[in-house]
Amino acid sequence: MSRPQPHKRATVHDIAAAAGMSRGTVSRVLNGGYVSAEARAAIETAMSDLGYVPNNAARALKMRRSQAVAFVALEPHSLFLDDPNIGSIMLGANAALSLADHQMVSLVVESARDTERVARYLSGGFVDGAIVVSARTKDPIIRVISDLSLPAAFVGHPPDLDQNIPFVGIDNVGSARAITEHLATGGRRRIGMIAAALDRDSGIDRLAGFRAALGPLFDADLVADVPHYDYGSGVKGMRDLLERDPSIDGVFAASDAIAAGALEALRDAGRSVPGDVGVVGFDDSTWAVRCQPQLTTVHQPAKEIGSCAAQLILRQLRGEHPDPGGQLLPTPLVLRDSA
Amino acid sequence: MSRPQPHKRATVHDIAAAAGMSRGTVSRVLNGGYVSAEARAAIETAMSDLGYVPNNAARALKMRRSQAVAFVALEPHSLFLDDPNIGSIMLGANAALSLADHQMVSLVVESARDTERVARYLSGGFVDGAIVVSARTKDPIIRVISDLSLPAAFVGHPPDLDQNIPFVGIDNVGSARAITEHLATGGRRRIGMIAAALDRDSGIDRLAGFRAALGPLFDADLVADVPHYDYGSGVKGMRDLLERDPSIDGVFAASDAIAAGALEALRDAGRSVPGDVGVVGFDDSTWAVRCQPQLTTVHQPAKEIGSCAAQLILRQLRGEHPDPGGQLLPTPLVLRDSA
Repeated sequence: MSRPQPHKRATVHDIAAAAGMSRGTVSRVLNGGYVSAEARAAIETAMSDLGYVPNNAARALKMRRSQAVAFVALEPHSLFLDDPNIGSIMLGANAALSLADHQMVSLVVESARDTERVARYLSGGFVDGAIVVSARTKDPIIRVISDLSLPAAFVGHPPDLDQNIPFVGIDNVGSARAITEHLATGGRRRIGMIAAALDRDSGIDRLAGFRAALGPLFDADLVADVPHYDYGSGVKGMRDLLERDPSIDGVFAASDAIAAGALEALRDAGRSVPGDVGVVGFDDSTWAVRCQPQLTTVHQPAKEIGSCAAQLILRQLRGEHPDPGGQLLPTPLVLRDSA
Repeated sequence: MSRPQPHKRATVHDIAAAAGMSRGTVSRVLNGGYVSAEARAAIETAMSDLGYVPNNAARALKMRRSQAVAFVALEPHSLFLDDPNIGSIMLGANAALSLADHQMVSLVVESARDTERVARYLSGGFVDGAIVVSARTKDPIIRVISDLSLPAAFVGHPPDLDQNIPFVGIDNVGSARAITEHLATGGRRRIGMIAAALDRDSGIDRLAGFRAALGPLFDADLVADVPHYDYGSGVKGMRDLLERDPSIDGVFAASDAIAAGALEALRDAGRSVPGDVGVVGFDDSTWAVRCQPQLTTVHQPAKEIGSCAAQLILRQLRGEHPDPGGQLLPTPLVLRDSA
């Protein structure tokens, strides 16, 4: 190769050539072995001239530890564009890993192509563990983690409960039940729900909690089923509910973004909140305080969830075996103006 | 080591031991060399029993290419929690890298501890290049990239214009000028600005464009200076402007989130939008369509910005030398209801 390759990093071989020494001598300098003062000086000059930095990939290989932990966001589109919690979960995980001197690397899985490549990456020795957010049953990434016995932690219920992977999350059923009861004890009689993501545990569990709170008063006609936890789904879901039953006076939205969309639809329909209709959300994300009126909602401790997931990985890297069950963090109700 | 290490991956050594073969024989199987059928069968059984997967870190080391590209978000707190564009930029970059079979790894830099560790990571052979978002002058990460000659691309103006690193961004001055002129030609007479992030090029340039549009009518008293591009800053900035001059009838907010906050402050003060006050934003993020009224704003092509930044890295990896100047993407005005 005679053409210069400007962006290729200098190797031990390059240093040896530049210093006029053998690679073995260079290696001894790098590994702290005995070398004559003269040889050491020549090699250090060559390193400096060539901008040499030791290759940590080599170190990772030798140590069989990369000191890196993956943060895998499945469904990144809705997560990064509609869910303000994901940022907090990421920063919480990063802070905990950082304290333990581990590098968090976030991997986006948006296409089948991504899935395959991320699976290869996870199995390739680049990371010591993986935090997985928003996993679905039978996701190929989960199979890879499971097959590799890669230290892992799920954020939210794991897709297969018989798996040996610990998780951190919240009690979606209990939280949904509590916030729905808040609507009912406030005197609301015709209470509906905008239920989202019914292909996921969080979605299914929030609907189950809503149903449990209403008991015999539950009316399946008052459940609008929308695909995502986003604002647009909230607008559509609320319009749908108003059409089905104009006398509706309470709404549990499965997320704050959905609740914000519902507020828009109610405003368009000339209904006041909380006067005509009480609205409650779920998340206590930035949406909750951006709305008019501000949302009564369920607080999700997003930063703590990220931090706990990181701890679950770090414990496994220390050789501990965390309880494969889940760690459920508390979710207090936050009472604001919307109900 | 007599204690079992459940999460340590099997190595060539482990396979050799389990199969009763030499490491050389195992290596020949892995590298497609000649091995007797009997030995191959024993080794393949051992690999399967031990859940062996080839170590790509080893391959990366040998090839001196990791097929991974870092996406480094400086100021992640404000980016991930307040700026909806960052998600689109990330997904745009990931899609372009994915097509070229490169793994994007996002790295968060929130503390001095993160800075040091990310600098080590970038110099450690784990990535072949780096996309850097929201860089500031004299950031240690920039120095590392520069010292290493790591293929890099900035999103937004690079902190030091004399550096050899290409960037992709938008014309903040021209865009701010155009949206301010829209307010002026709409008949607004007392036009103020909520300027943010004046320690960064984007913030400085948007203020410069505002000033250029107004020419002799520019009044420094009508510029509220807030630290971040977020909603809360918008509420505060607008209150501030109303106090300074209650006759204000036009506002250019340096971001859509700021504009949304300004709408809240105007609502609280009993001013109608666009009746009493015309408000325009910047970004065309999800904020713009969540507001009441929806925002007239500057469209930032976030996904394309991410994709172009990725292309700048991929070109460098192919040995090309992209123009170290910037690539500025078009930013059409989007006319909605707020002005």
